[in-house]
Amino acid sequence: MLDDVAFDADGLIAAIAQSAEDGTVLMLAWMNREALAETLSTGKVCYYSRSRGKLWRKGETSGQRQELVSARLDCDGDAVLLLVRQTGVACHTGRLSCFYREMRPDGFRDTEAPRVSPDELYGRKTPTP
Amino acid sequence: MLDDVAFDADGLIAAIAQSAEDGTVLMLAWMNREALAETLSTGKVCYYSRSRGKLWRKGETSGQRQELVSARLDCDGDAVLLLVRQTGVACHTGRLSCFYREMRPDGFRDTEAPRVSPDELYGRKTPTP
Repeated sequence: MLDDVAFDADGLIAAIAQSAEDGTVLMLAWMNREALAETLSTGKVCYYSRSRGKLWRKGETSGQRQELVSARLDCDGDAVLLLVRQTGVACHTGRLSCFYREMRPDGFRDTEAPRVSPDELYGRKTPTP
Repeated sequence: MLDDVAFDADGLIAAIAQSAEDGTVLMLAWMNREALAETLSTGKVCYYSRSRGKLWRKGETSGQRQELVSARLDCDGDAVLLLVRQTGVACHTGRLSCFYREMRPDGFRDTEAPRVSPDELYGRKTPTP
């Protein structure tokens, strides 16, 4: 199936994570072939961090893991939708979803407040279970 | 607000369209600054077609338009979630969602069948209302 995936010139595909429980769109990140293969085989979501240039096993630092329920490739093969069970929150700001900055005629308005502090997510040596 | 958007080296941002009605993730496409500005000001979703190199007013050929309900920028500003009211189907294959190719251990399995034929969507001169 990986041969049907249209990775871009950088070898990446856009990956959308959506809560399998309530349909919330949690985040958009990127996967290379290795990250997608690992995600499909282990059932634990692994992205590719463009900024760090390496695999990013979601939750390895914060404990906020994503368990794969279903992966769905789109019609032209250059994006994948991941239905996941999210442990805790998806966003590094402590919010459930990264998409919290609503664009309104009068400017941004946050759609949700942080549920946990980033310090709590990243400040401790031992990941939150 | 557009100054807070982190367009990439090609001047684009990833845009996810999600049904405002039932939460279905419909498609992923791209927007340049002009497409996002037009979408926000008109309330009708306009993407940027990378293959055609021009603005793509969703539904202008097929009639399968998207009305914007809410646009939400993500935490690092390089992706936007569009909550939309979809007229008809989002996918050019005639399916509601472009993400219909479930990746299973034994291969792809379609999660939905076409609701309308592509010929019907694109074969007529007058767009379906």
